Amino acid sequence: MSLGEFELIERYFMRPARRAALGVGDDCALLQPRPGMQLATSADLLLEGRHFLSTVAPERLGHKALAVNLSDLAACGAEPLGFLLSLALPAAEPDWLERFARGLFALADAHGCELVGGDTTRGPLAIHVTVFGEVPAGRALLRSGARAGDDLYVSGTLGDARLALEAWRGRVALSGEAFEATRVAMEQPQPRVTLGVALRGIASSAIDLSDGLVGDLGHVLRRSGAGATLQADALPRSAWLAAQPPEVQRLCTLAGGDDYELLFTAAPAQREAVQAAAAATGVPVTRIGTIEAEPGLRAVDAQGRPVPLALSAFDHFRP
Amino acid sequence: MSLGEFELIERYFMRPARRAALGVGDDCALLQPRPGMQLATSADLLLEGRHFLSTVAPERLGHKALAVNLSDLAACGAEPLGFLLSLALPAAEPDWLERFARGLFALADAHGCELVGGDTTRGPLAIHVTVFGEVPAGRALLRSGARAGDDLYVSGTLGDARLALEAWRGRVALSGEAFEATRVAMEQPQPRVTLGVALRGIASSAIDLSDGLVGDLGHVLRRSGAGATLQADALPRSAWLAAQPPEVQRLCTLAGGDDYELLFTAAPAQREAVQAAAAATGVPVTRIGTIEAEPGLRAVDAQGRPVPLALSAFDHFRP
Repeated sequence: MSLGEFELIERYFMRPARRAALGVGDDCALLQPRPGMQLATSADLLLEGRHFLSTVAPERLGHKALAVNLSDLAACGAEPLGFLLSLALPAAEPDWLERFARGLFALADAHGCELVGGDTTRGPLAIHVTVFGEVPAGRALLRSGARAGDDLYVSGTLGDARLALEAWRGRVALSGEAFEATRVAMEQPQPRVTLGVALRGIASSAIDLSDGLVGDLGHVLRRSGAGATLQADALPRSAWLAAQPPEVQRLCTLAGGDDYELLFTAAPAQREAVQAAAAATGVPVTRIGTIEAEPGLRAVDAQGRPVPLALSAFDHFRP
Repeated sequence: MSLGEFELIERYFMRPARRAALGVGDDCALLQPRPGMQLATSADLLLEGRHFLSTVAPERLGHKALAVNLSDLAACGAEPLGFLLSLALPAAEPDWLERFARGLFALADAHGCELVGGDTTRGPLAIHVTVFGEVPAGRALLRSGARAGDDLYVSGTLGDARLALEAWRGRVALSGEAFEATRVAMEQPQPRVTLGVALRGIASSAIDLSDGLVGDLGHVLRRSGAGATLQADALPRSAWLAAQPPEVQRLCTLAGGDDYELLFTAAPAQREAVQAAAAATGVPVTRIGTIEAEPGLRAVDAQGRPVPLALSAFDHFRP
């Protein structure tokens, strides 16, 4: 990139290191987890048209690029420490960069997560974040810990991000007010970092919902060697989604994607502890099913009747 | 990506964790630096057409994507630990993935650096690597440590990568043999990891050469608050480059880019120690100048006459 573009990056993205041993500006950043802590790390690549719409406000895009990574820390019960930001930009537009940085740093500051380095280049808009957190050794929440008899929980509500996407695609009808409200879920998800930390020692497994409940629950079941039955009508949803036809509700809650809520399991003996963690962090949590020894995923409605989970049921919604 | 593509990624990129506390397959990877060690991290984004030619062999591209990151660890004197790989692929081609993975893991294994996670998505070919290493607390080589009177050194030879690029662009004449030889420097650089580690406690500052000697030395001088005089005719170059006109030699050695050699400084009292580190690691090292209190960068030829360093001198080579 030209010198002018380097200067813009320095202007909008360089801030002094506070927690890192060495921050932006050298060949490497240096991090030092506290004694007894492991370093948790995860990375996500966001591409225009695939992970965000070209019409997204830059502030929301800055927020989302970090949020999806903080969500991975949350799913491990790790506390945020810092992040690397790599940007490919078609051009260095001061207004866009200023707004992107504003949304990014607002979320970063809210979680005490500092920018420690990265990379910039000219190219089609692409955003890559690598996030770092710490978790006490041996206490990270893993996908592999679900056991038969455990309760299955989800935080927040499911499906609003998918509902907004389907409305944007013109496949469902939504009022302007409902579209703006659900669009926030799609473009500015809230990573459940404090809940993840609060669930250490309580939850037996956890994952964050990025690809949709059915798919992500499948990862937990495979790695845990277990099965599950979902209460399909118990899945928490917003008033906007609850006003949609049942078929749309099922699609959006079961196969929504981009929810960034925590899906986790806990032994029935932990029910009070789970609700106390939810209350302490201000994040609602709903019990949505049970882990079972029998492999596979099943779903039932409020009357106990089987609900089909085959993705082909949603084929007419797929691109 | 479709399930088939996920399976390909698992097939070519998933290997069991050896040094990481938790590797590929959960929301986060978990790393635990040894007691007293800091974690060094760096990231690079490689885009087709900008950082590599579309004609590059996949093995070499896999090598280079990790090599440019290992080079950042080398510049800090850090020992490689692991890396995250994020890939955007237009399609999942088994042959390409197999060859890319072969080049990637050959270099990773040579440095004991294991893949611990990452991200895959469909999109225009883009490769992002985040690398992790460890360095004893307080002993990392930084850009800021150069002092007036220090010797200035560079490892290996300079300019072959740029020479190959200019030949590919049709701007310089090169035999087929010379092109194939210099092309290896461009496409398959050797990160100077063992030299970087050996220079801990000997070098006063270090940086790896990715943007060209003049530009990267400028970073060291600015952060160290110092100036320097380069011996322009002392810059080490290959026989292929030495056979080119003087103007091409100056361009390629001074402003080449993609060299991935180490540029470092050390007090004159360390001359024997520097040569011992070079001998022990099998990486040739050349003294190319002196750090001075007077700010700015100067260059002289073998007769002590000033050599112009203005980039405008190379303008006819610029794209």
